[in-house]
Amino acid sequence: FPVFGLVRLLGLAAAAAIVVWAVHFRGGMALSSETDKLLIFNVHPVLMLIGLVVLNGEAILAYKTVPGTKKLKKLVHLALQFLAMLLSLIGLWTVWKFHDERQIDHLYTLHSWLGLSCIIFFSLQWATGFYTFWYPGGSRSGRASLLPWHVFFGLFLYVLAIATSVSGLLEKSIFMQSAKMIGRFSTEAMFMNSLGMLLVLLGALVILAVVT
Amino acid sequence: FPVFGLVRLLGLAAAAAIVVWAVHFRGGMALSSETDKLLIFNVHPVLMLIGLVVLNGEAILAYKTVPGTKKLKKLVHLALQFLAMLLSLIGLWTVWKFHDERQIDHLYTLHSWLGLSCIIFFSLQWATGFYTFWYPGGSRSGRASLLPWHVFFGLFLYVLAIATSVSGLLEKSIFMQSAKMIGRFSTEAMFMNSLGMLLVLLGALVILAVVT
Ligand code: HEM
Ligand code: HEM
Ligand code: HEM
Ligand code: HEM
Ligand SMILES: O=C1O[C@H]([C@@H](O)CO)C(O)=C1O
Repeated sequence: FPVFGLVRLLGLAAAAAIVVWAVHFRGGMALSSETDKLLIFNVHPVLMLIGLVVLNGEAILAYKTVPGTKKLKKLVHLALQFLAMLLSLIGLWTVWKFHDERQIDHLYTLHSWLGLSCIIFFSLQWATGFYTFWYPGGSRSGRASLLPWHVFFGLFLYVLAIATSVSGLLEKSIFMQSAKMIGRFSTEAMFMNSLGMLLVLLGALVILAVVT
Repeated sequence: FPVFGLVRLLGLAAAAAIVVWAVHFRGGMALSSETDKLLIFNVHPVLMLIGLVVLNGEAILAYKTVPGTKKLKKLVHLALQFLAMLLSLIGLWTVWKFHDERQIDHLYTLHSWLGLSCIIFFSLQWATGFYTFWYPGGSRSGRASLLPWHVFFGLFLYVLAIATSVSGLLEKSIFMQSAKMIGRFSTEAMFMNSLGMLLVLLGALVILAVVT
């Protein structure tokens, strides 16, 4: 049963879907705008989802999908996770800037609490992973005793990133419904719900691929 | 490191918190009411969280926490999961009734899609678990080959129940903020966010207790 191919397919579908959502449904993205601040917001879901969900998933599976030496697999793993971390930091910056420019409070929602924890712990996980397994690298026994925790915490953060994305999709949809921008059963609302369900399926398959 | 005790403590804290929320912040619960339909709604989070999160977690750990014979552990596991299933069905019925009586659409949110999937698959998991491992019970090899899937799918549903509860807390908080019933940084909003974070921690510890 070709779980790696399916994961890649669903990951690409999710990445495509969030871009389609931002561009087709929400009118595009921008890093700064005087007329439509929402274009700045739109960058956030795209970078978060592609970074902390899609690239994170590919990075986790790299040890099983990348051919060649262990060193190469490791390099792909750490490089993809670095890219994921970078995108998540830029995605955080864009939503923060949007809140500042529209004078919306920071960190008042459960989504934002989950999200900030996610980003902080992801960055810490990257730094300790790099320090332990790449440079300077711990002793053989130090590495061996840290690895189970690296794996457990890495999978925890992956699942947390999916739960955070799902909560972000939900709250955005509800904000737009409350503001009468979209209807409860509008194509866009159904599209966002479906993307949320897709993320849950993708997450289950990535975990399955790791544990089997 | 006493992870089972900590899980029980956090589970009890979460159960207490959702009851405090319903009673203290939301004015109580009722199975029917002419004057305040929201009292009917309030039953939903309480039963869902106590059933599919707290009891589900205790049931999953029963093989490791209940002393005595394997048969007894199994009986506690299946009985607690039955209770969890029952509470979830009643909790579904109450929110459905609330929507009917207030003429709110059904199943338009991502929370409701996740939640309905959760309840359906939980009931299927219970039925196939009972049929395979209790009565009439499959062959030894049938049981052995189904068990890893029972465990994987059981843990998946547990995590899904937590993600669904988190999304429910988030949307309820945002509904109330949009309706100006509570403020963004009100005690109640902070209480709900904290409960959501507590559920994430509880979930991580239950999974940790199972895999170690
Ligand atoms: C793992 C992925 C994600 C992370 C780590 C994350 C993180 C965050 C953080 C930290 C904030 C707070 C910004 C502030 O207070 O100034 C925020 C806000 C927001 N995010 Fe996300 N986000 C993620 C995915 C998404 C997705 C997929 C959506 C979908 C549309 C989304 C929608 C929102 C919205 C609407 C806000 C503004 C309201 C609020 O503060 O909750 N997020 N996000
Ligand atoms: C936030 C970033 C990171 C996350 C979320 C993460 C997550 C994971 C996960 C889930 C696994 C288990 C994969 C499997 O068993 O198939 C893993 C394995 C591993 N990771 Fe990371 N990782 C991160 C960063 C790093 C970095 C920077 C390094 C440095 C080289 C690293 C080194 C390793 C190693 C050596 C393994 C074990 C591979 C093996 O022998 O099976 N990780 N990581
Ligand atoms: C695993 C736990 C949960 C499950 C399976 C679940 C399931 C559901 C389902 C199926 C609905 C749709 C009812 C309808 O369409 O008529 C619903 C609605 C709702 N639930 Fe939950 N729920 C859970 C936990 C929670 C929690 C903890 C809260 C916190 C307050 C909550 C808040 C809501 C709200 C506000 C609605 C009405 C809006 C909507 O349809 O999304 N739920 N829930
Ligand atoms: C929706 C309901 C259920 C869920 C979510 C569920 C979940 C789980 C989980 C997560 C485990 C792994 C526990 C561990 O490894 O420590 C497990 C083990 C098991 N469950 Fe269930 N279960 C359910 C219903 C049932 C029912 C009704 C039976 C019937 C007897 C059953 C029989 C078993 C057995 C025999 C084991 C293996 C215990 C062992 O030998 O380690 N389960 N279940
Ligand atoms: O009924 C059971 O099935 C499994 C196992 O025997 C299958 O190999 C188990 O632990 C039981 O109690």
